[in-house]
Amino acid sequence: MKSKHTTEIASLGEFGLIDRLTSRLALRSGTTLKGAGDDAAVIDLGDDVLLLTTDMLTEGIDFDLSYFPLKHLGYKAIVRGVNDILAMNARPEHVVVALGVSAKISVEALDELYEGMEHACNELGIDLVGGDTTASMNGLIITVSATGRAKKEDVVYRNGAKEHDLICITSNLGAAYMGLHLLEREKRVLQDVENPEPKFEGHEYLLERYLKPRARTNVLEALREEGIRPTSMIDLSDGLASDLRQICRASECGARIYLERIPIARQTTELAEEMHIDPVIAALNGGEDHELLFTVPLDKQEAVMRLGLVDVIGHITRPESGVILVTPDGEGIALKAQAFDR
Amino acid sequence: MKSKHTTEIASLGEFGLIDRLTSRLALRSGTTLKGAGDDAAVIDLGDDVLLLTTDMLTEGIDFDLSYFPLKHLGYKAIVRGVNDILAMNARPEHVVVALGVSAKISVEALDELYEGMEHACNELGIDLVGGDTTASMNGLIITVSATGRAKKEDVVYRNGAKEHDLICITSNLGAAYMGLHLLEREKRVLQDVENPEPKFEGHEYLLERYLKPRARTNVLEALREEGIRPTSMIDLSDGLASDLRQICRASECGARIYLERIPIARQTTELAEEMHIDPVIAALNGGEDHELLFTVPLDKQEAVMRLGLVDVIGHITRPESGVILVTPDGEGIALKAQAFDR
Repeated sequence: MKSKHTTEIASLGEFGLIDRLTSRLALRSGTTLKGAGDDAAVIDLGDDVLLLTTDMLTEGIDFDLSYFPLKHLGYKAIVRGVNDILAMNARPEHVVVALGVSAKISVEALDELYEGMEHACNELGIDLVGGDTTASMNGLIITVSATGRAKKEDVVYRNGAKEHDLICITSNLGAAYMGLHLLEREKRVLQDVENPEPKFEGHEYLLERYLKPRARTNVLEALREEGIRPTSMIDLSDGLASDLRQICRASECGARIYLERIPIARQTTELAEEMHIDPVIAALNGGEDHELLFTVPLDKQEAVMRLGLVDVIGHITRPESGVILVTPDGEGIALKAQAFDR
Repeated sequence: MKSKHTTEIASLGEFGLIDRLTSRLALRSGTTLKGAGDDAAVIDLGDDVLLLTTDMLTEGIDFDLSYFPLKHLGYKAIVRGVNDILAMNARPEHVVVALGVSAKISVEALDELYEGMEHACNELGIDLVGGDTTASMNGLIITVSATGRAKKEDVVYRNGAKEHDLICITSNLGAAYMGLHLLEREKRVLQDVENPEPKFEGHEYLLERYLKPRARTNVLEALREEGIRPTSMIDLSDGLASDLRQICRASECGARIYLERIPIARQTTELAEEMHIDPVIAALNGGEDHELLFTVPLDKQEAVMRLGLVDVIGHITRPESGVILVTPDGEGIALKAQAFDR
């Protein structure tokens, strides 16, 4: 590198790096309906569109093989890749997997990884249609690239939220984050113990949420059956605060969400308190929830509540109102990506 | 890992790992025309097909940033990804890029990488439509996933070679391998020198072949214009010996290629001799040529020669004859993947 001036990636802030890298990208093909900047790219096929996305997991950052069973890791890698297709309201169809493998990984370990991938593909009714295996100097690397199909008019982008729309989420938040914290704690506590027996009783739900997140295809199907088309949608991977801000940024709007309406599982709250973590922080900023965050028009309130699969946590506002978390005593706090200030 | 018995990946041999991992993959979707096992997957779109492929490059294995300019690396990553689409006789259309970046990489370095990617996309008339950036504990990782389109009847697989077909290659072989050796030599020689001035004069061609391989879209266009449809095709990435064996394996045939017909550039031969490397080894086993290896029916001999873009190096035989390299004195040597025995 001969650059006289170098900039650390972290200094660019929340959306800085992606914005900077993708802003230069020219779109030449008339078939590209949406390039970078949403959960997946959208490519014109005539009546239908093709969705395309890619997702990389690296050892030591995204997973720790000392406690992450390879079968689960394979399953999770596929679900993560496919979630970006689901978040466009599309049907996932095909995945390809590129692996970087270090010399220390055995064939049996890769068998397990593939078993988990195949299990996920089977559940989702999709095909794993190829891949690439290369050596890696340091640790396992998994890139899952996924395609999907949808009718053009069915695709839901991040940028369609309108004032008064309701903000909805599937399942509950913060559980995966607490599952990860539990795994990290037991690893730390037992690192010098000869036959370690980690204490996971009562926390199975949290572990499963972290190790084996489920794709919410059922929610999308239920919405379709009820004739509810989300106005905007995103995969909840970076945490509610950051992902809601992505929707507001793309849709040029603000949002108000209500703290007491954010669904947090009992198990999440219990472990968070035991570990002196604020469960609200886990829910807002923990990340890796892999639930769907979406908006629906106000007049769909009853219909969406009736599904029993979704919580309404707030509504969309004008852009100048900002992205606000309302506490039970009515105080409004501006939501930031990685933390929130009282 | 609790497996009692573990197998090293290397022990599975040439095609063992991929075979083992992909053999378990079930194809559920009626739209999957070809899953794993060719340069790209083939997905039914009606009249057309969609091609899908993925390719990972890892620092320290596939490239060395101490001498690989990031702009070239970006360019090469795209060309590699796209070559797998070209090798199916399809038109590349879209790519997505997943990056793993270590803390030591600056924003300016990623700018350069993207500049090279964008340059390649512009030359190829394709769109970079998105990606993913994650942290990496150890070095830069680049996964390029590419899509392409073709009419169903135009797709060329690895498995269509027939007895008597002619074996053709584009450009010449072994140059990228010698370019890499030169870069490695200069790095070694100059590692303790304060202001190193590597000696590259006269070797620019070899460096370019390694650092900036070109996609051979022109050859495919010329074949199409002449009405020549290859019967089988593969991207020459692992070396002629291995890639020809892939075609023979998929097509259930043998092959005879003639040593004196294998095109090797003068610059390749000169540097190989200077470095005491057999230029034939460089051409057969060097790899990273990123040329096209394909077969055409015997009656297309004149037409294919007239193009002036292709060398005919041999012909397809019955499977029981094996994959044979014929030396100038008429001796036949069985080609192995990584070396050949006299």
